Amino acid sequence: MMDLIALRRDLHQHPELGFTEFRTAAKVVEQLTALGYEVLYGQDAIDGESRRGLPSPEVLEDAYQRALRDGANPQIVEKMRGGYTAVIGILKGKAPGPTVAFRFDMDALPILESTDHDHYPQAAGFRSLYEGNMHACGHDGHTTIGLGLAEKLADGNFSGTVKLIFQPAEEGVRGAYAVVQKGMLDDVDYLFCHHLGTNVPLGEVHGSCAGFLATTKMAAYFEGVSAHAGASPEQGRNALLGAATALLNIHAIPRFSTGETRINVGVLEGGTAANIIPQSARMVVETRSATEEVNQELERRVRNIIAQSAAMHELNYRIEVIGAAIPIHSDQELAELAIEEAKQVEGFTAFQVGAANSIGSEDASFMIRRVQERGGKATYMVIGTDIPAPHHHPKFDIQEEVLPRSVKLLERIARRTLQAEFSLSRAEGEDRK
Amino acid sequence: MMDLIALRRDLHQHPELGFTEFRTAAKVVEQLTALGYEVLYGQDAIDGESRRGLPSPEVLEDAYQRALRDGANPQIVEKMRGGYTAVIGILKGKAPGPTVAFRFDMDALPILESTDHDHYPQAAGFRSLYEGNMHACGHDGHTTIGLGLAEKLADGNFSGTVKLIFQPAEEGVRGAYAVVQKGMLDDVDYLFCHHLGTNVPLGEVHGSCAGFLATTKMAAYFEGVSAHAGASPEQGRNALLGAATALLNIHAIPRFSTGETRINVGVLEGGTAANIIPQSARMVVETRSATEEVNQELERRVRNIIAQSAAMHELNYRIEVIGAAIPIHSDQELAELAIEEAKQVEGFTAFQVGAANSIGSEDASFMIRRVQERGGKATYMVIGTDIPAPHHHPKFDIQEEVLPRSVKLLERIARRTLQAEFSLSRAEGEDRK
Amino acid sequence: MMDLIALRRDLHQHPELGFTEFRTAAKVVEQLTALGYEVLYGQDAIDGESRRGLPSPEVLEDAYQRALRDGANPQIVEKMRGGYTAVIGILKGKAPGPTVAFRFDMDALPILESTDHDHYPQAAGFRSLYEGNMHACGHDGHTTIGLGLAEKLADGNFSGTVKLIFQPAEEGVRGAYAVVQKGMLDDVDYLFCHHLGTNVPLGEVHGSCAGFLATTKMAAYFEGVSAHAGASPEQGRNALLGAATALLNIHAIPRFSTGETRINVGVLEGGTAANIIPQSARMVVETRSATEEVNQELERRVRNIIAQSAAMHELNYRIEVIGAAIPIHSDQELAELAIEEAKQVEGFTAFQVGAANSIGSEDASFMIRRVQERGGKATYMVIGTDIPAPHHHPKFDIQEEVLPRSVKLLERIARRTLQAEFSLSRAEGEDRK
Amino acid sequence: MMDLIALRRDLHQHPELGFTEFRTAAKVVEQLTALGYEVLYGQDAIDGESRRGLPSPEVLEDAYQRALRDGANPQIVEKMRGGYTAVIGILKGKAPGPTVAFRFDMDALPILESTDHDHYPQAAGFRSLYEGNMHACGHDGHTTIGLGLAEKLADGNFSGTVKLIFQPAEEGVRGAYAVVQKGMLDDVDYLFCHHLGTNVPLGEVHGSCAGFLATTKMAAYFEGVSAHAGASPEQGRNALLGAATALLNIHAIPRFSTGETRINVGVLEGGTAANIIPQSARMVVETRSATEEVNQELERRVRNIIAQSAAMHELNYRIEVIGAAIPIHSDQELAELAIEEAKQVEGFTAFQVGAANSIGSEDASFMIRRVQERGGKATYMVIGTDIPAPHHHPKFDIQEEVLPRSVKLLERIARRTLQAEFSLSRAEGEDRK
Repeated sequence: MMDLIALRRDLHQHPELGFTEFRTAAKVVEQLTALGYEVLYGQDAIDGESRRGLPSPEVLEDAYQRALRDGANPQIVEKMRGGYTAVIGILKGKAPGPTVAFRFDMDALPILESTDHDHYPQAAGFRSLYEGNMHACGHDGHTTIGLGLAEKLADGNFSGTVKLIFQPAEEGVRGAYAVVQKGMLDDVDYLFCHHLGTNVPLGEVHGSCAGFLATTKMAAYFEGVSAHAGASPEQGRNALLGAATALLNIHAIPRFSTGETRINVGVLEGGTAANIIPQSARMVVETRSATEEVNQELERRVRNIIAQSAAMHELNYRIEVIGAAIPIHSDQELAELAIEEAKQVEGFTAFQVGAANSIGSEDASFMIRRVQERGGKATYMVIGTDIPAPHHHPKFDIQEEVLPRSVKLLERIARRTLQAEFSLSRAEGEDRK
Repeated sequence: MMDLIALRRDLHQHPELGFTEFRTAAKVVEQLTALGYEVLYGQDAIDGESRRGLPSPEVLEDAYQRALRDGANPQIVEKMRGGYTAVIGILKGKAPGPTVAFRFDMDALPILESTDHDHYPQAAGFRSLYEGNMHACGHDGHTTIGLGLAEKLADGNFSGTVKLIFQPAEEGVRGAYAVVQKGMLDDVDYLFCHHLGTNVPLGEVHGSCAGFLATTKMAAYFEGVSAHAGASPEQGRNALLGAATALLNIHAIPRFSTGETRINVGVLEGGTAANIIPQSARMVVETRSATEEVNQELERRVRNIIAQSAAMHELNYRIEVIGAAIPIHSDQELAELAIEEAKQVEGFTAFQVGAANSIGSEDASFMIRRVQERGGKATYMVIGTDIPAPHHHPKFDIQEEVLPRSVKLLERIARRTLQAEFSLSRAEGEDRK
Repeated sequence: MMDLIALRRDLHQHPELGFTEFRTAAKVVEQLTALGYEVLYGQDAIDGESRRGLPSPEVLEDAYQRALRDGANPQIVEKMRGGYTAVIGILKGKAPGPTVAFRFDMDALPILESTDHDHYPQAAGFRSLYEGNMHACGHDGHTTIGLGLAEKLADGNFSGTVKLIFQPAEEGVRGAYAVVQKGMLDDVDYLFCHHLGTNVPLGEVHGSCAGFLATTKMAAYFEGVSAHAGASPEQGRNALLGAATALLNIHAIPRFSTGETRINVGVLEGGTAANIIPQSARMVVETRSATEEVNQELERRVRNIIAQSAAMHELNYRIEVIGAAIPIHSDQELAELAIEEAKQVEGFTAFQVGAANSIGSEDASFMIRRVQERGGKATYMVIGTDIPAPHHHPKFDIQEEVLPRSVKLLERIARRTLQAEFSLSRAEGEDRK
Repeated sequence: MMDLIALRRDLHQHPELGFTEFRTAAKVVEQLTALGYEVLYGQDAIDGESRRGLPSPEVLEDAYQRALRDGANPQIVEKMRGGYTAVIGILKGKAPGPTVAFRFDMDALPILESTDHDHYPQAAGFRSLYEGNMHACGHDGHTTIGLGLAEKLADGNFSGTVKLIFQPAEEGVRGAYAVVQKGMLDDVDYLFCHHLGTNVPLGEVHGSCAGFLATTKMAAYFEGVSAHAGASPEQGRNALLGAATALLNIHAIPRFSTGETRINVGVLEGGTAANIIPQSARMVVETRSATEEVNQELERRVRNIIAQSAAMHELNYRIEVIGAAIPIHSDQELAELAIEEAKQVEGFTAFQVGAANSIGSEDASFMIRRVQERGGKATYMVIGTDIPAPHHHPKFDIQEEVLPRSVKLLERIARRTLQAEFSLSRAEGEDRK
């Protein structure tokens, strides 16, 4: 039987950023294959063009070479080279039935992990080996649970098809959309997503949660003309003047009476030297709203402000969407089902069918919407664990006892739903084949 | 013989702003007619469409009615109604010869004249009767000199044609261009313009001067959509956000290595109430440069900034040129001739053929360029007078002894140039018929 | 008996803006006096220093003279000269008991009333005689109801004291605070405020309502140094640069996760001419929030931005609070009592104890808080009337049948609460004497 | 005799940026010492605190280690560790007399040198070995000339003292001031500075030049508070909002009628991620003016704008001067003397005593002023060389034949002025001891 703790610690020691999860994903491929799953990965599992906020080719290649050095299976990672790090494990049961999917995210964060003695991974000797990267959001746990679940279901004693979706680049909400665009969710009847922690204590389970915001993250590039600031300033086209004008006006987008909004220009960089009119600038902008419609309007206004700020200073510009998510509307029937099963698992002692956890944005939202659009049902659950420091903090950690009981919960959910006769009232959606 | 002092004081008491010089211009028409001049005025003397910064119909009409109340000849001012306040007096001499023109401006300023005892017009009882308006730049003197010259030359004892051009709206550089566009300068061989004062002391004459800047004055109007700032801010299109963005970016237009520049946003007004998203805004902008080319580039940039600031906030806008001038390049032969004649006039004791007087911008520049373009010659002279306070100051005043000697100087210049055989080397220009 | 319809129409024809309600207030004084009330008015009823957004002395004096011309009692308005237009009527009953207050606002709006035939005040011949001013928010009705109630209660057949508060300048939330600061609310046990309309139909009564936002309205004045924009721009201190910088940065104040916010710069005006560096600018800013704490933080940030924008351009500045309100928290016991009484009045057919009417901000909030702080109770009711056009619209109107039934309702509330033994559980508050 | 060409090529291959000229300066120390000069270097030659735009300790140390690896004398560079890379060679003649100084700058630029075949250093095999650094302004030539001159004068056959000043960090105008502050110029009677190239052709010499602008280069650091842009934006203090506000307002500093000005914000960088309120920002600003007074006023305004922009957004900030220069006013007597000598040197064929070369800013200006303040005289010469590409261009190069003749010219100047009886009329200055 799989040693979940050891697996999680191995992953924790090798944290890989979004779209560079070569070692992690290769390990997932190996395990799923060994367990008898059909495995889709590389360009078979993710649509290249739809990936958002892809790192530069240099960064991708460096991470690739590191994975090879650290023992990743060369035949497997070769197919992932260039950032194709999604993995889908598929297992058909012994009889026909619904398709039930579970989603796990694999990526880490660019955070320097704490070396304090009271930080458990440090004390227990499994702190990050990749200095500056860290599993500070529990995705090492998510991936571990996914592989644990895969093992449990490998017997195939169910009716229908189980689909285990290991997604890259959830941080920055960049990877799920490309998995959806590849069609990986199109045949799913029931989708269960989950997150560990998010301020829910150990022992507590939420069958669904609300409060996810629609969001768009954009990178804008301004390109002007440099000139000597003393000798011929009039020959310059000043990229920073354009960018600073955009920055102020983006922040000045009004409040909306139709929904909570957020706006941020998180990064601005431009220019090279005191005596040179700045030729180039880069800006990173984020919009959020409780509704997709308002978020689209925010995005439209941001794009217009950037376009006109550029034109004002006779700059060229381009805008790239580097991340996006939409709100999540869980199906309550699945949430109730999940809680019913959680009550049967030792260790879970507190339960909520639905709760308003404000945990920002999630690109599982695209998976959930695709399933719902096609008539399926989906929910986003939270499995509690006490955490010594907030998510994305150098001292973040999870309690490892949450791992086996999470596997048990998901297995129960799978076996409950993977029955020939299982059916919930169908949602409105497009016809499915 | 005309009482120049009384005439000047009458004009000083009735100061009329640009394009509302109804009483002043009617008086000029009456005098020129009485002296036997052919007189063009109203729409015969100025091109309506080319007038810049025309006051509102209400302001024009109020001033018109005031002129009537104050005794302006109704038959004459009727033709000027709506702001057609240019007057051209033409007298053909007894033999053929060149056409020699003199230019006089007639308008006053929106300045409240001082009531201090040491302000001579107050002490001598001829302070402005039009409260808030004032002849604070000596144009009352200019008009007086023009009529004095008309009287001197009324004998027609010369060869050629004399043309006396009384121009409206020099302040704000708004009126001369429309006189030029009407064709009034097209047949002029020699043009003499002048200004009293400009920090040149009594007794001194400059035959020409330099330092005039090209300038464009623009009014920009932004039009958005109002909305309740509490209930539905997102429905507004905020004219003040657009205008403030334009204001900052206009001021941020770079220095030019190719010529001195100036930029100013002199006025910004918009919005109605604390709780309403501002629907409208008005901005007044001025550009200046030592060269016409750089000024045109400044104007182009200002227009672009306004256009993009409006587009950034989804506003409509329009831009109106409300004033303009170009640099002046006087012909040195005329400057020398003028100084030769000045030396013959009692009271003038100091002389410069050319000097760099920084007196801002002048729309006589358009008249000068038109004459030069068509092969004629022109100069812009300064006739000194001590002034107790700067131009455009509530205590500005001229010394009245400058008036008769200025008339004598211009008469000498006229008689010198109005000779059948008079000719200076021709400038390069288009052919003239 | 008082003719409520005639009274309302007389008030409607004579709409007076905030702090200039001389004729209206004088009429109230006369009526209350005639009915036997003790009447406080002028500086006895309002704290001069605490008035916000007071009009200029010229505007106050013009309105004062107009009131005199229109027959206002000279002895009475003399005491109100300069904007002291609050009136308090006090009547002690035949036995001791609680003090019960009712609040009525009297001011009109700077709106040009419609002349359309289908606008009832036009059709019926009582359109505004003060062109450009209009009772477009029903305060003519409120004042009428207040005098009608005064008449009903003039018999003194109750235990305790009735206090009728006629407040100036509700529009812009400017006047109530100064009445509170004068101490007029300090002895009140029960306070009933109300508004007609606000999208509640005729026949419906709300015992309380929610949704009022805390708000601060500020006027900021920037003062720099003018200079000639061509000759010596560096000598200027540009007030518009400071103001435009403030404007953009005020709009860029972030959203708050702790409460809905609103920000608006409703007015910006500055500068005089194209060629003058702008010396002065005026800005009107509004903040709002669901909580007083967040609104105070918004106000603090706005003040800081204005201060630093001024300092950045070496300007002097001052900020004046021209309006303010806080949220309203009605006491549900009063709301229930009001609805119980409303059910006894013919014509009222629909009832809500509490409702979320988003009707912006109300400075009755200061009166309500003062009463509650001192241990009393208060509510803000809505009495429905169909309206042909929104509040503050040129075609706004109320249905006059709402007037007599409103008087009946308030009378019932007064007689119910004005009993020696009447008592509701006391709120927490400071001790009262 | 020294092989000037070989020396120059060695320096060209080892280009070191400002304050990291360890290898270069060590070589200068070695040569001067070998020639019998007294040599001051390290903290004996430069004031540490007065160095502007010092690189980070890491950069200084990396360059130091590189110099050691490349054979720099460890005993010598040890004294320069941390960026003390000035060298002063002093030689007393055989009799008393004036102190005559020559200045040479040693630093290179962060430019990637061309690898094109037609780039002579590439073709001849002496392209930069320090990839990304390049001698693209001729300072390799200047240092070579300095050492060549040292050799010529090593005989000591003159009256007085020769002082050869090898300065670090002229690029960015950062190093000269610290040499001056160390007192190295305090005893100098005559100072000769020069530059190769600057668009003056081979064979031409200018005895002095004008057109240097006063300049200040500043780095500003803004420090706020980060916060999650979605969860708690109000807790952030946004460094980029402050910096962008400063940027726009710095560009909006007015033109000066009292002198040409330039303003540039050359760099702005801040923030870390889309969803984080930016905590830090860095800005690099440059001011220039024809006069030191105006430049000081520009610097004052920039500092004020930065301070208030920071305060507006509740940020901490600091400003560091990273470069500065003042205008140069050469003494014409020295310029004439230099030209007289140049006429005696074979190869020089065209001569100008003074010329207006617009070559930006030069921190030799501080040395020149110090000499003049103390009653000495100084000039800044240009020695022509054809250049295939502009200064600071990847294909910049000098013609090496300029080197020996420049040495001859400086030797002649030295021998002419190093005479006991040599004296020019003294400038006004403070007394010298």
